[in-house]
Amino acid sequence: MKINLERLRCDLEELGCIGHDPGKPGSGVTRPSFSRADFEARAWLKKKFDEAGLAVRQDGAGNIRGRLGGPDAGVRTVLAGSHIDTVLNAGMFDGSVGVLAALECVRRIREEGVRLSKPVEVIAFTDEEGNLVGDFLGSRAFTGRLNEAEIRRGVTSFGRPLKDILDGTEFSEETILGAHRERPEFDAYLELHIEQGAVLDTEEIPVGIVERIAGKRYYWCSFRGKADHAGTTPLELRQDAFLGTADLGLRATQLVATHHYGSMVTIGKVQVHPGSFSIVPGLVEFSLEFRSTSRETLETINRELMELAEDIASTRGLTFGARLVDTTDPVELAPRLVGLAKEECQKLGTPYMMMASGAGHDAQILAGIGETAMIFIPSPDGISHAPGEAIRWEDLEKGANLLLHVLLRLAS
Amino acid sequence: MKINLERLRCDLEELGCIGHDPGKPGSGVTRPSFSRADFEARAWLKKKFDEAGLAVRQDGAGNIRGRLGGPDAGVRTVLAGSHIDTVLNAGMFDGSVGVLAALECVRRIREEGVRLSKPVEVIAFTDEEGNLVGDFLGSRAFTGRLNEAEIRRGVTSFGRPLKDILDGTEFSEETILGAHRERPEFDAYLELHIEQGAVLDTEEIPVGIVERIAGKRYYWCSFRGKADHAGTTPLELRQDAFLGTADLGLRATQLVATHHYGSMVTIGKVQVHPGSFSIVPGLVEFSLEFRSTSRETLETINRELMELAEDIASTRGLTFGARLVDTTDPVELAPRLVGLAKEECQKLGTPYMMMASGAGHDAQILAGIGETAMIFIPSPDGISHAPGEAIRWEDLEKGANLLLHVLLRLAS
Repeated sequence: MKINLERLRCDLEELGCIGHDPGKPGSGVTRPSFSRADFEARAWLKKKFDEAGLAVRQDGAGNIRGRLGGPDAGVRTVLAGSHIDTVLNAGMFDGSVGVLAALECVRRIREEGVRLSKPVEVIAFTDEEGNLVGDFLGSRAFTGRLNEAEIRRGVTSFGRPLKDILDGTEFSEETILGAHRERPEFDAYLELHIEQGAVLDTEEIPVGIVERIAGKRYYWCSFRGKADHAGTTPLELRQDAFLGTADLGLRATQLVATHHYGSMVTIGKVQVHPGSFSIVPGLVEFSLEFRSTSRETLETINRELMELAEDIASTRGLTFGARLVDTTDPVELAPRLVGLAKEECQKLGTPYMMMASGAGHDAQILAGIGETAMIFIPSPDGISHAPGEAIRWEDLEKGANLLLHVLLRLAS
Repeated sequence: MKINLERLRCDLEELGCIGHDPGKPGSGVTRPSFSRADFEARAWLKKKFDEAGLAVRQDGAGNIRGRLGGPDAGVRTVLAGSHIDTVLNAGMFDGSVGVLAALECVRRIREEGVRLSKPVEVIAFTDEEGNLVGDFLGSRAFTGRLNEAEIRRGVTSFGRPLKDILDGTEFSEETILGAHRERPEFDAYLELHIEQGAVLDTEEIPVGIVERIAGKRYYWCSFRGKADHAGTTPLELRQDAFLGTADLGLRATQLVATHHYGSMVTIGKVQVHPGSFSIVPGLVEFSLEFRSTSRETLETINRELMELAEDIASTRGLTFGARLVDTTDPVELAPRLVGLAKEECQKLGTPYMMMASGAGHDAQILAGIGETAMIFIPSPDGISHAPGEAIRWEDLEKGANLLLHVLLRLAS
């Protein structure tokens, strides 16, 4: 039994047109959750679910499910999916391949008239990309792991209050906070996703079976020094906040690369004040994020980076500050499901490798309350979150067939 | 013969109220050239000149002169002054002390009925701070050293075209470019100014006699790398433009501090793209400025920094770009005037030291066409271009008296 690649490809291309301006060559897809484009995509997806003969449900956080198989009391469902929202100017595969491949699997199961012992549900989670209030709003709402205060405070990454964005929609803070009460009991959650890195592409292997997902810490930091005249303040008397940040960037990278190989550290956002040619920077605010698949390593890196920053501050006459703005723990995926996926790969003759995910996924949130697994397909050149994001259709076919066969093992 | 400190202090405090919002405690003076506050200050200054019995002139660039002594054909004048424009949120002494101390000197000369062999003119130059089109617009116009193309292109530091700002004023690109034709022949230009650094304050010496003014180069630079996902791109595979900039900042500082002691290098303005927590910076644009009192050293630093940046780029898989946006040459002030100033200091019993100016001044532009000298008074804690900029009144008194006696030597 195999998926219909041509049908899946059509679905992906149709969805990829929503939130994409064909008048702008080279531009990507912009479909953040609860935007106009997202509502259009939601309507499209519900219609697709309906056409596939699935019972469509939507919870108070906007998570959309399409269910194959009756609601037998006491029977747990098998979930498969991902998300259909995107970052700004994104590619068309991140998230969408997971939802639409799951839909294709369920269509094939129905077409073949396979008798299921458990219902299978395709799910699309709201705002995996964190355009609203932190990453994984939908899956956090689904699992009842939202931070209520954060939702109430709710300022989105566009600077608009969450309340304003929800106004006039069928959603509210209350419905989002209550969404977990509508959750079906589930036996397993499976997510197919593009790797978003270059490991599979470099190794020329079509499928990755994910064993662990890295946890991360996001800090918003600052070095405060003294904004002096760049022409009259001798180098040795300066308290230059930019040089402090530079020092931290280089030494943090060195530290993680040599002592915690495989973990990540990034300074991605930097604001230099006052930001003038001829004034020594008196204040730099910057993001410091680091990731590891080991909880212990994450803690060690956290401690070492904070010590390093304090050390740099005291050497350079600066003051260091750090505020934790987001954190997720490293997650180990379900060994039973990982084992099943390996077995099915071997049966299908699909080359695969075991791997860890450096990027975050809804699967890591679901893993907090049930058995979860992830399948990766290669991202050519590792490009993601950009219009140049791509896949190879033959890789998608292999990944989706693996998903199909794991679903069949779990539900039939 | 001595200046009247009380009168000078009143003038400074009156001028310091123009462009200052008393409703905002701790805020400074904002009086960029051709702003509303600047036009108010210009009207105030012309009235002061007039009340002091000076003949008021204004050239096509808005440089204002007040002349004591008749226009004898063929007799060169002695100029003294500075500027009354400010950076945004400035202190009240930078520039203003030079113009108002010169006014006070001329008032005293007139009050004492001193017979002059040459006219003395107080001058206030337009836009020394470079809020319009590069530094020293007024003194460059005065000396005929404007870059015509730059004026025609004219985009100001606020992003508004120069044309728009001149619209509705008595000035235009044409009058600015023609201003040098209205220049009087001059024998000497003297400028009293706050040091804007902490040398005099640290040494507890009330007066500095400036021998040289540093030249500088302003570059707008970029490192271009690759904007990858911060969770999935191993540290060793990144082309992180921020780490390139960090490396340059630290190594450039090290290079100048060890091999060119006394010269300066600063990265003051930094823009990191795309500027997201979880994306490796793919592009950083930043200012690189360096200064030296030696033309040869300036050239050497220029060559070494460009080589260093290219070296960093090739090591880190980045592309380096640099565009020269402003340059001024180091200037040696007139030895005759420097000698006169020393003699008068000794006669007055005023402690002084010889020094170089790291900051730029109108004096360095005037030095291109005539004999020029500068006198510094201390900046407590070196604070300048900020609301906390200060002076001690007893230092101003000593500096202004020195200016008075040098003027008397030159003009009587």
